[in-house]
Amino acid sequence: MSEAAVGFAKANGERFVEELKALLRIPSISTSPEHVEDVRKAAEFVADGLRKVGIENVRLIETSTAERKGHPLVYGDWLNAGKEAPTVLLYGHYDVQPAEPLDEWKSPPFEPEIRDGNIYARGAVDDKGQMWMHVKALESLITADGKLPVNVRVIVEGEEEVGGEGIAAFVREHGEQLKADAALVSDTEMFAPELPTLCVGLRGMIYTELEVKGAATDLHSGMYGGAAPNPFVAISQIIAKLKGEDGRISIPGFYDGIEEPTADELKAWKSLPFDEEEYRSHEVGSTELTGEAGYSVLERTWSRPTMDVHGMPGGFIGAGAKTVIPAKATAKISFRLVPGMKSESTFAKYKKFVEEIAPKGVTVEVRMIHSGEPIVVSTDNKYVRAATSAMAEVFGKDTVFVRGGGSIPIVGDFVRELGIPTVMMGFGLPDDNLHAPNEKFHLANFHRGIESIVLFLDKVGAGV
Amino acid sequence: MSEAAVGFAKANGERFVEELKALLRIPSISTSPEHVEDVRKAAEFVADGLRKVGIENVRLIETSTAERKGHPLVYGDWLNAGKEAPTVLLYGHYDVQPAEPLDEWKSPPFEPEIRDGNIYARGAVDDKGQMWMHVKALESLITADGKLPVNVRVIVEGEEEVGGEGIAAFVREHGEQLKADAALVSDTEMFAPELPTLCVGLRGMIYTELEVKGAATDLHSGMYGGAAPNPFVAISQIIAKLKGEDGRISIPGFYDGIEEPTADELKAWKSLPFDEEEYRSHEVGSTELTGEAGYSVLERTWSRPTMDVHGMPGGFIGAGAKTVIPAKATAKISFRLVPGMKSESTFAKYKKFVEEIAPKGVTVEVRMIHSGEPIVVSTDNKYVRAATSAMAEVFGKDTVFVRGGGSIPIVGDFVRELGIPTVMMGFGLPDDNLHAPNEKFHLANFHRGIESIVLFLDKVGAGV
Repeated sequence: MSEAAVGFAKANGERFVEELKALLRIPSISTSPEHVEDVRKAAEFVADGLRKVGIENVRLIETSTAERKGHPLVYGDWLNAGKEAPTVLLYGHYDVQPAEPLDEWKSPPFEPEIRDGNIYARGAVDDKGQMWMHVKALESLITADGKLPVNVRVIVEGEEEVGGEGIAAFVREHGEQLKADAALVSDTEMFAPELPTLCVGLRGMIYTELEVKGAATDLHSGMYGGAAPNPFVAISQIIAKLKGEDGRISIPGFYDGIEEPTADELKAWKSLPFDEEEYRSHEVGSTELTGEAGYSVLERTWSRPTMDVHGMPGGFIGAGAKTVIPAKATAKISFRLVPGMKSESTFAKYKKFVEEIAPKGVTVEVRMIHSGEPIVVSTDNKYVRAATSAMAEVFGKDTVFVRGGGSIPIVGDFVRELGIPTVMMGFGLPDDNLHAPNEKFHLANFHRGIESIVLFLDKVGAGV
Repeated sequence: MSEAAVGFAKANGERFVEELKALLRIPSISTSPEHVEDVRKAAEFVADGLRKVGIENVRLIETSTAERKGHPLVYGDWLNAGKEAPTVLLYGHYDVQPAEPLDEWKSPPFEPEIRDGNIYARGAVDDKGQMWMHVKALESLITADGKLPVNVRVIVEGEEEVGGEGIAAFVREHGEQLKADAALVSDTEMFAPELPTLCVGLRGMIYTELEVKGAATDLHSGMYGGAAPNPFVAISQIIAKLKGEDGRISIPGFYDGIEEPTADELKAWKSLPFDEEEYRSHEVGSTELTGEAGYSVLERTWSRPTMDVHGMPGGFIGAGAKTVIPAKATAKISFRLVPGMKSESTFAKYKKFVEEIAPKGVTVEVRMIHSGEPIVVSTDNKYVRAATSAMAEVFGKDTVFVRGGGSIPIVGDFVRELGIPTVMMGFGLPDDNLHAPNEKFHLANFHRGIESIVLFLDKVGAGV
């Protein structure tokens, strides 16, 4: 059966890309208040796409509450495979990161352009392109076979890039509507080009804002410099105390309870094709790599927690000079968490420490923007086995197991609230520029992704 | 003679304020490329104002060179008092600071509004209002007496808030065109309301940008966090190392050669009406004052060098969350210098130190934006005595001598290039919000300023 569906996917690949282009043209930036309507437009696009391929009960589910205006979920299902057949929950997101800095894009972020076999646009790989693979795999199966090999539920969210509060609440409160045996998420990457990869662990995160206030108003640095607290100096002192130059985070108790990867896992990571010098020079492009001493790069990005500062709003940031002592400074600071850490208790330790080390003359406020828990998925289940063999078949190579340094909070929610494992079958590449200018998706992987998903669903249906 | 001129000033005070309002409506923000035409408009306004009151040879002097597009100087003179009469050089500036943050202004920054006897607008006191006092004092004398008691040259610049490069070059290259016996500058403040004050010392400054670069492009903090250098963390570590929490700047040799105030000067400062708690709670508004241990607030702001950070451009500063490791971070950092320090050698020490302490994985670049030398004016000359007695007469109180924490680089240029002392007779108040939202000028001081300048010129002419 899957042969016909794969054939259909191959024959219709060009049209699939054209459809993806249309979706990529919608600037569905979920963090940006001025793009609220675009985000909804993207949701409608996905809903229409699901309806057209034969998915049933397609609808938008509003996530707004009295407290917050959310972006809608897109839901659909196809439950005609019979009660005995397993049900797979397909998850993706249609929202994207902001595109700034705009002047570093070679082609405009919302005008998709194909160059050298890649499609360039914000959201190309994260996650519109990968989510669209799901829709097109369903189309290929339904059109070629007249039915799907398993029951399917599809849930596509529009708030992944801003914390996914809406879907988390929905899963918590209406989990029964998503009842399934396993979830499939395509929002990760392959370890290397041509290397089929399953992700079996993700870091969690807490994304925070630290606000430091000094004087009641902005002051002239000539008149008050030397006596008035400078919140940017204070916030720098705090940040410098959060992380030592050895890469160790200095928050008391921060590393408590961390579950180390198993010896087998560490051994497997060592055998992956990884060239640290190549990674430094081609992917990162810095003079040296940094991070915690005593850990490999893969450990530092997969199984060790980190702290990053993303930007420091406030003060004078225009061209030229303004001699102001700003009344306040803010830093956007996030921590990546690994198995054994909890977002809530980590935030509490961080907040307490910042309050303790705040320099004199300033007041500090620490705000949680969003959070997600770290997870590790067991490789010992039939869904992971089906995915492993599907990818190996399409790529003609053994599938490797890796972890991801990023966060997909929903995967943790699926475990906790629905009690189901998630297969993270991603087709991005390490140089796809996620969250950065010139985001792209390698088109060959878009097509192989569709085929892999077709085979995966087929194998799950066949009980392989 | 001065009685008639003072009478004229009193009778025409309301008109003078209306004229000032018209000048304040011009957003002559010298640092902002989009206000180039407004800056020129303000220059023309000042030139017209000088012509109307009877100043001769009024003209704009372009400061643009092949390397830079500058704002014009306004020049005028009145040299009919005779060769024996002294010549006073009146200096002011018609450019203003940016008005951001706009939402903190109670009335729009370029729509002057009078509330409670104060005129609120960007530039009200710094320096349009004080510069306009000079013009109106000249008008009062010429109209009432038919002549001035001294020869006068007027030079008004449009780049004071961006370093004054144009006037510095003009003074250096064409100093003979400004030949005078003393300069009068009204760009400082009174120590307290109702307390006539002469400023006899100013700090210098270097205003710099520190740029820290890590990865070649922005990276996703999930994928690369833990291995890629974070330039905001690095820049925070550098800033934290520039200044200890005791307020001491840690740059090697930074304090070398500083000339301490004399014992007499320190004693005089102690007798000034200064309430540290009042200053903290009403002027600064922070929970505590900060700064170098072992020095009073007046010493810390007048005779001790400082470091301030004004803002940190780069990275993600929008609403919400973006999980990016920015490729670079910048900090706008300035140092105030005191007598005995030189801008060039201080910058060199700072640059060298930053390069030495730069954390691994990042590259640093330190750029000088502008600089000015610190100065101390001798109180032992007839111009200072004339000013002291003029102010005492108008205010009915002894004039006090203070220093200023800010920088007026031109005062140093007048000493070095023209060999003349500067009388710094300022009429601002400590809560006038210079460089901050809701800048104001107390109108009573605008009027007393005009009268003080009338008396000052009269006394200089009479050889008092």
